[in-house]
Amino acid sequence: MEFDLIDLIRMRTAAARADVTLGIGDDAALLAPPAGHELALAIDTLVEGVHFPVGTIPADIGWKALAVNLSDLAAMGATPAWAVLALTMPQVERSFVEGLADGFAQLARQHHLALVGGDTTQGPLSISVAVHGFVPVGQALLRSGARAGDSLFVTGTLGDAAGALYCRGRTGENVRALRSRLDRPTPRVAAGQALRGIAHAAIDVSDGLLADLAHICRASGKGAVVQAASLPQSSALRAVFDRETARDFALTGGDDYELCFSVPSARAGEVTATMARLGCGVACIGRVVEGDAVLVVDEHGNALSPSRRGWEHFST
Amino acid sequence: MEFDLIDLIRMRTAAARADVTLGIGDDAALLAPPAGHELALAIDTLVEGVHFPVGTIPADIGWKALAVNLSDLAAMGATPAWAVLALTMPQVERSFVEGLADGFAQLARQHHLALVGGDTTQGPLSISVAVHGFVPVGQALLRSGARAGDSLFVTGTLGDAAGALYCRGRTGENVRALRSRLDRPTPRVAAGQALRGIAHAAIDVSDGLLADLAHICRASGKGAVVQAASLPQSSALRAVFDRETARDFALTGGDDYELCFSVPSARAGEVTATMARLGCGVACIGRVVEGDAVLVVDEHGNALSPSRRGWEHFST
Repeated sequence: MEFDLIDLIRMRTAAARADVTLGIGDDAALLAPPAGHELALAIDTLVEGVHFPVGTIPADIGWKALAVNLSDLAAMGATPAWAVLALTMPQVERSFVEGLADGFAQLARQHHLALVGGDTTQGPLSISVAVHGFVPVGQALLRSGARAGDSLFVTGTLGDAAGALYCRGRTGENVRALRSRLDRPTPRVAAGQALRGIAHAAIDVSDGLLADLAHICRASGKGAVVQAASLPQSSALRAVFDRETARDFALTGGDDYELCFSVPSARAGEVTATMARLGCGVACIGRVVEGDAVLVVDEHGNALSPSRRGWEHFST
Repeated sequence: MEFDLIDLIRMRTAAARADVTLGIGDDAALLAPPAGHELALAIDTLVEGVHFPVGTIPADIGWKALAVNLSDLAAMGATPAWAVLALTMPQVERSFVEGLADGFAQLARQHHLALVGGDTTQGPLSISVAVHGFVPVGQALLRSGARAGDSLFVTGTLGDAAGALYCRGRTGENVRALRSRLDRPTPRVAAGQALRGIAHAAIDVSDGLLADLAHICRASGKGAVVQAASLPQSSALRAVFDRETARDFALTGGDDYELCFSVPSARAGEVTATMARLGCGVACIGRVVEGDAVLVVDEHGNALSPSRRGWEHFST
């Protein structure tokens, strides 16, 4: 069984890369890492009912399984190269595997990434992907480099995926727009690479802005102030939810896979120009400060009270 | 949740390697592959009830999750270096995670392997590990190099893990010996490395000798003849099962994680001496021939009839 399935996946994900000496089909892949670079390596798992709703179409599962991993590479400023995939599914359905491989391959092609190995097993539906990318030695973006006075930015918009989960079962153009953000997140790979040599610290927003920003603050020994009014929100999110709910989704909703990063204030303009060139939305949402707390303030600088969603817990 | 668990695993699996620039704790690990080598990469998943019996102790699960992956590196002749781990479990039990990490670390230490990243999620119990090793450029052992006339060898003994599954619930010294082969397989890492430059083809026996030998034959465009009387069997297997059953387990039982490899006949003596030096049992079980079938013959050279376990299906 396993070999047919992996063959089927291979046929759909074949990518010609000169650095793949031996791809799928032996006990291990053989790869030729480039000189002068470090290898960036991450692994993430998606479980049905936890990371994607039951009933998600196979192509979206395949896309997202790769996207969440590419997002980790993006947050390091790395260039994607190779992936291996471990698929566990209750029973072998050819159409399911084909759909999943198609979705995976669609995103892989965009990033010239080669799937070089895999494992299929029988069990409850889940998919683990390990991705590999390169970054010139010493140039990776870490969580730990934020400095007091840095400007804080996020790419794209926040809260869409959380909004999509909240309005499951509903229909309409805005709901579909939110749902596509949940099902087909866009890893900010080009943005991450462009931030090498500019950003002091970076992370991808997978657990929610406040949670992930707290990781940067903890790793850097700093605090942060976030301007609630500056949180970038999609028109779809604003149309479907009231102001406070949209804000809470933007602050605490996971699964957006945008980048959150800090840059020296003097280079804020350069960031805006660079992201515009890449066609990637970006917003300055606050600044890094001394201390160990992540504060959210309104347009008058007053700290906002914790909402019902409990974002008061996100101190570092 | 995730961060505490991964920290807990990290504390138990920390390994000082100069080629790990950044280990667990950021969006990705940063690694420095050595010059002049290819990177060997494999991923394997263990699912409860499929790859280990329900009730297997956590330390054995952790050990085995790494062992089955190291076995893939062994089959390539690669030297292990790094691993990432994705753990899915129904609920967070600290003692379970500690046990699993301890078992993983026990084997990792033997091979100076560093765990450099991980992901923990909630869901049905399963564990995926991706391993990375090095092999000097062009020296990896492939499945595809077997030549007619080569001698076929296997390390260790065959059929023990299958025997253990068969006598679940029984006790006694022999049953315990079989069970320990199922729960704590020994990846033949040193043997694999020693076979670089000697073996024409190699694979690890995970699906059963005939199935895995068929992979070598298919990849090499050759056939094979296996001498049933030469199959290496443990005294425990012989003590617990009748001759025919033990032979069938040795031919078709999976999960033994021994190496099966082909070498030029002229170097058979060298193989025996090398394995003796490593303290690794080895047996010549047959030879590679022209054709596309894997035949099993008795001591008179007569092809054996397929047994009730149906190993007639393993043609290439």
